[in-house]
Amino acid sequence: MTYKANEQRMQDKIDTFSKFGDAGHGGITRYCFSEADIQARNEFKRRMEAIGAEFKTDDIGNMYATLKGSEPDLPNIVTGSHTDSVKNGGNYDGILGVMSAMEVLEAIHEQNIPHRHNITAMVWTNEEGSLYPPAMMSSGIVMNDYLPAEIKKNFIFENMMKSKSVIDNKTTFKEALDNSGFKGDKANRLNAKDYCANFELHIEQGPILEANNNDIGVVTCVLGMVNYRIKIYGVSDHAGTTPMKFRHDALYGAAKVLQYLHDELDKLDDELVYTTGEILCHPNVHTVIPDYVEFSIDARHEKEEVIKQVVEVIKNIPKEIVGCTTDYEVAWTRDTVYYDEELVSMVQESVDELGYSNQRINSGAGHDAQFVSYMVPTTMVFVPSKDGHSHCEPEFTSTKQCTQGASVLLNAILKRDAK
Amino acid sequence: MTYKANEQRMQDKIDTFSKFGDAGHGGITRYCFSEADIQARNEFKRRMEAIGAEFKTDDIGNMYATLKGSEPDLPNIVTGSHTDSVKNGGNYDGILGVMSAMEVLEAIHEQNIPHRHNITAMVWTNEEGSLYPPAMMSSGIVMNDYLPAEIKKNFIFENMMKSKSVIDNKTTFKEALDNSGFKGDKANRLNAKDYCANFELHIEQGPILEANNNDIGVVTCVLGMVNYRIKIYGVSDHAGTTPMKFRHDALYGAAKVLQYLHDELDKLDDELVYTTGEILCHPNVHTVIPDYVEFSIDARHEKEEVIKQVVEVIKNIPKEIVGCTTDYEVAWTRDTVYYDEELVSMVQESVDELGYSNQRINSGAGHDAQFVSYMVPTTMVFVPSKDGHSHCEPEFTSTKQCTQGASVLLNAILKRDAK
Repeated sequence: MTYKANEQRMQDKIDTFSKFGDAGHGGITRYCFSEADIQARNEFKRRMEAIGAEFKTDDIGNMYATLKGSEPDLPNIVTGSHTDSVKNGGNYDGILGVMSAMEVLEAIHEQNIPHRHNITAMVWTNEEGSLYPPAMMSSGIVMNDYLPAEIKKNFIFENMMKSKSVIDNKTTFKEALDNSGFKGDKANRLNAKDYCANFELHIEQGPILEANNNDIGVVTCVLGMVNYRIKIYGVSDHAGTTPMKFRHDALYGAAKVLQYLHDELDKLDDELVYTTGEILCHPNVHTVIPDYVEFSIDARHEKEEVIKQVVEVIKNIPKEIVGCTTDYEVAWTRDTVYYDEELVSMVQESVDELGYSNQRINSGAGHDAQFVSYMVPTTMVFVPSKDGHSHCEPEFTSTKQCTQGASVLLNAILKRDAK
Repeated sequence: MTYKANEQRMQDKIDTFSKFGDAGHGGITRYCFSEADIQARNEFKRRMEAIGAEFKTDDIGNMYATLKGSEPDLPNIVTGSHTDSVKNGGNYDGILGVMSAMEVLEAIHEQNIPHRHNITAMVWTNEEGSLYPPAMMSSGIVMNDYLPAEIKKNFIFENMMKSKSVIDNKTTFKEALDNSGFKGDKANRLNAKDYCANFELHIEQGPILEANNNDIGVVTCVLGMVNYRIKIYGVSDHAGTTPMKFRHDALYGAAKVLQYLHDELDKLDDELVYTTGEILCHPNVHTVIPDYVEFSIDARHEKEEVIKQVVEVIKNIPKEIVGCTTDYEVAWTRDTVYYDEELVSMVQESVDELGYSNQRINSGAGHDAQFVSYMVPTTMVFVPSKDGHSHCEPEFTSTKQCTQGASVLLNAILKRDAK
């Protein structure tokens, strides 16, 4: 049999949480441990305790609300996401995974659904890292010992506690955590012994489900990626006094290299995505020919062989172009993280049984689930993002779609519970 | 007969002034009214008073040192440049015109050269505008009533006095002027009645004289220019979740527009110079597809018809490119400023008589002389810039070349005096 989440209750949660950090024009700004975030955290606690869930926090402020199962010695099944947002973000990124986790527990409670395992709704602290970088901070901390070396070198616990507010460049994450009232015991952290499965529901943050008219994305992996810095060295000269033939214009060089990258990368796999989002130009004065330009190139694909081809293209950037020299440097890489096949199947079966239109999809963005998956079997459920928007105020998923997602989550968790 | 400047005395001045603001690795930082600039100003005053020149300053701190002529009721002939520099600038830009002006007066004094007109060595305050923008501030103020409307709108006296230090964003130009000890009387300003000719010697700041193996540039004009802002509007989306075909990447659009500009502008006149020195990218985050990019395009040519062709190319930028829309906005324009033909001839005759290799040249950069020329007949003399460098520490002109330039200046001034 299939169970369903309650659309009205989902709407109530969406309406309630959208007020915490309401920026006044349809979206929210809800930085980690801000007043708005504390409001959202208290609301999570209040609602979970109202249905008899046991509430606790760990030493990084991650919150766990657990409904006891009939066999409480079995490890917990956990589902959740984050309450914090980017600046002027929308009402769905992160918080929808929290609301869906609450909805799962509320539905189980209301419908008196039998379950053997403890089922935990969870909130990860500071997923966005918008105020206290980096992103996925607390899942990085908790899963630290399980992370691949390449990721781990970016996650040094001591450094992260010292992370300073990007606004005042003074307040540290540790201070905000200490003052939040949500700092608990390290022993309460999610761990490999006490947890057997993790599910995260999230908005897609892309246009694929909507374009294919599908309501649910059965997520199979988080895409592998490479992130390089491309550097172009020219010579700085006066814009008015240097004939064109004497120039070594690093910005024109950068435009040429960017075109080369597009030309070559477009020849590779159709599923490849690559982005130059950041460019630095020196001295960046309108009357001076630039002597140095650096830009980022971020490329993601499920298959390692395609990522390797991308790296080859980068390595083959012409060493000299329009009188400039070029260089590149790897910023970071991550391999594709495949989600747990058994859990993916349980999600797929649940969607099929519920009869929702769906497809397999990969996650191009990073999520806490991706870090958790190194320690505990994990998978994700995606719901559509209208026009593919996320991290902005127009971010939207209909309450019907949100509720369908929560229903999928509920049934998948119950399938895992029954195993 | 021809007169010559003294190479040893020039060397002494170069050595002395290079110490004021010495940055420790071959160049100087000598912001307007900084301690280093005050030192340079005092040295100018000391040397000029030592040869009996009358020293005065005007209300913007411009300095005038005058050797009386035999017919002191005739208007003055003036020559000079500026003592201030850019950050980590060289030992020649500006100050060489001041040292050459001093050398002219010192040579006249030492060699007892008869002259009818008063001859004034001059220092313009804050030509670079590096600490207190804009550049050419004080010549803009003094010549304000004579400037074309299009230039004038950028030169509002009251605003400029309020110009804030780019370092502390607090100290105003007016405060620095008041505290400098060099604020004098407005009545002392250079004016159309009391001055009949203006000469400015400057380093070329480009590679042309050196490439042609010429020691002197007989400057005929300051190039006309246009400066536009090019704008590309895209859509911001997540770098990991947005398939390539759904993208509206404003930075890729900018690269395409830049290439279009290079392709089309390269078809125009060989003498045209154009530069994109500044680029802004929003939000400039490596994981976000840029939704807005803006860049500058500065183009300079002597002939108005070529500048018009440039504007046509800009107007014909495709309105849509790689899914983005484009727009443009004029930032400013200036027409070519032709220097006084009679003074140009006097410079040419002087160079020829001295037997120095030379060529006609235009000035791609702006100088105080360009503003003065709207009020008083003006011309310029260029000496070579090694490797075309300027506004940087490797800036270099040999003392021999500097002295040749001062000799040309001396003889041209005497020709004007004799008229």
